[in-house]
Amino acid sequence: MSGASFNRLSALSHTLQKQFTSKRVSVGVIGSGNWGTAIAKICGENAEAHPELFHPQVHMWMYEENVEHLGETRKLTEIFNSTHENIKYLKGVQCPSNVYANPDIRDVGARSDVLIWVLPHQFVVRVCDQLKGHLKKDAVAISCIKGVSVSADRVRLFSDIIQERTGMYCGVLSGANIASEVAKEKFCETTIGYDPDNSVNPLYTPNTIRSVFNRPYFRVQVVKDVPGVALGGALKNIVAVAAGIIDGLELGDNTKSAIMRIGLAEMQKFGAMFFDCDRLTMSEESCGIADLITTCLGGRNRKCAVAFVKTGKPMHVLENELLNGQKLQGAATAKEVHEFLEHQNKVDEFPLFKAVYNIVFKNLPPNKLLEAI
Amino acid sequence: MSGASFNRLSALSHTLQKQFTSKRVSVGVIGSGNWGTAIAKICGENAEAHPELFHPQVHMWMYEENVEHLGETRKLTEIFNSTHENIKYLKGVQCPSNVYANPDIRDVGARSDVLIWVLPHQFVVRVCDQLKGHLKKDAVAISCIKGVSVSADRVRLFSDIIQERTGMYCGVLSGANIASEVAKEKFCETTIGYDPDNSVNPLYTPNTIRSVFNRPYFRVQVVKDVPGVALGGALKNIVAVAAGIIDGLELGDNTKSAIMRIGLAEMQKFGAMFFDCDRLTMSEESCGIADLITTCLGGRNRKCAVAFVKTGKPMHVLENELLNGQKLQGAATAKEVHEFLEHQNKVDEFPLFKAVYNIVFKNLPPNKLLEAI
Repeated sequence: MSGASFNRLSALSHTLQKQFTSKRVSVGVIGSGNWGTAIAKICGENAEAHPELFHPQVHMWMYEENVEHLGETRKLTEIFNSTHENIKYLKGVQCPSNVYANPDIRDVGARSDVLIWVLPHQFVVRVCDQLKGHLKKDAVAISCIKGVSVSADRVRLFSDIIQERTGMYCGVLSGANIASEVAKEKFCETTIGYDPDNSVNPLYTPNTIRSVFNRPYFRVQVVKDVPGVALGGALKNIVAVAAGIIDGLELGDNTKSAIMRIGLAEMQKFGAMFFDCDRLTMSEESCGIADLITTCLGGRNRKCAVAFVKTGKPMHVLENELLNGQKLQGAATAKEVHEFLEHQNKVDEFPLFKAVYNIVFKNLPPNKLLEAI
Repeated sequence: MSGASFNRLSALSHTLQKQFTSKRVSVGVIGSGNWGTAIAKICGENAEAHPELFHPQVHMWMYEENVEHLGETRKLTEIFNSTHENIKYLKGVQCPSNVYANPDIRDVGARSDVLIWVLPHQFVVRVCDQLKGHLKKDAVAISCIKGVSVSADRVRLFSDIIQERTGMYCGVLSGANIASEVAKEKFCETTIGYDPDNSVNPLYTPNTIRSVFNRPYFRVQVVKDVPGVALGGALKNIVAVAAGIIDGLELGDNTKSAIMRIGLAEMQKFGAMFFDCDRLTMSEESCGIADLITTCLGGRNRKCAVAFVKTGKPMHVLENELLNGQKLQGAATAKEVHEFLEHQNKVDEFPLFKAVYNIVFKNLPPNKLLEAI
């Protein structure tokens, strides 16, 4: 081959490689709690597994803090980047070495084509404001934030808040997923609500989004119904309180499964009435029925409700005793949803939600639950 | 009033009363095991509660046998008709006094407008033959018989067998119902598959059929999808074996709820492929999702599958040890369904059903379940 030919070929190869490289999707994660770290671990594994699709490095924003480690005070990011373990929030789990803990949130935002939000909901608005103007054009977001934001006159999805405040299209991930079990690679499923018709970037098909998250132990289904995915993870907590009341009354598995079925129907009705959700998102996807089952079998809402029936102590006392002061999502959601439904004049169309509210907050005896529904 | 007027009025009243009486529906029950007796109790309560709809007495066919009672040998029917308790099969539960234990099966058949079948499936064909020609014209049947009859080339509903052999239209009742809990009036729900378009008798609307069974503690939904109701109660047992395998492997609630969701999807697929069932019967009704939940939480299929994983003993040995020789429905159904699917060349479209079969009968290690699905 002549020198000129070689140079032309080399230049062509460089161009091709640049095109190849520039098309690869950069994945970033905002948040590094236990669920954030577990998600970053998954994304890192997939970046390794699909080099043709993804940029090799996954940046995870980690709020910088000093921690004691092997007798020294060190920065958490430094420890993570040398040990690949989040020793504070997901101890004992090794992340792949291509996950990089980055303390600069704007840098993570600026690098990412797919930006995953996994942080406590109370920080969402502040982080949106920090990131605004520091994001890639046409990047998309996926919210893994549990729950919805409910006020008396409005139920808002965190994905909508992110979308409005940053301009990024935002899908939702939710399912029967406990962070510590996912981190240990125990098999489970999840659902992503992602509507390609509304996403601004046609490059990021549902298949691309699926490939960011799907692992042999973490099976992903993508549906178009974004609000259905978000609502399932919030409303299930009310039903879990009802299931816990039934367990506390020791009424048996038939009664419990009936309550779960009736609760699921109210979740579907709520979704259809206020968000035009697809009923099948609740009854057939991981974010609906599977998450509901998990929560009603072993979650803390169920546990507190059992104690509530057996001890007669108020729920806020049990929160302190049993949850180390963590808030009980089920009780809080029951209250917020009740206030919203009152404002909509629809309380009586959701008798199970209403009964849970009245039992937890208005001294309705727990054994009146069945009469009420 | 003159004597003539009085006589005319009396005659008119008599005629009216006769019309009123003749329109009332006679309910009969074939079978008096624990579920049969619990169902007869429900029907007796409803006959009392709705005298405008139902004939006051409910005849329950009871196979005549002698039992020891208070130091004497007596007939079981006589004891029931004096004490209103089925001391052999549902001890400790009081039936209303309008339930009459009748040892003459043809007499029960000849009296009944709505004839409820609650007997072990192996007796169905024989009883059909005994009753043929001794049934009311235009009477309808409801089958409470669990399961379906599966051979290599065919899956048959017991309701279809009853319909073909007796000529009666036959609906199906199935749900998350354990006889002893229903008898104690613990709240649960059930589903009746009853298609008024196919029933020969327009008098017996879905509402009438609902009123035969519905109680404050036993809530009935009527759907048109008869095969869906029957299949749910059979196929759930295969899924419960899978759920028990997950429990035996101690993989946690997320994995278990994922398996239940995947199993439910295979139940829907099976129903749609071979019976044109409505998918919502499985995912939203008591006979589907609620029965599946109950069975996967506490049933004996789950229990044996846990022991199967933990001990490595073959399933038929565990049946003897844990179930006093009762057959394990889940294992039997997995085998029958597998043979049927093989004959249809569809085994691979049902990976969870296939994996359960291979684990229980073909030495596939239980920990291969997740890889297989």
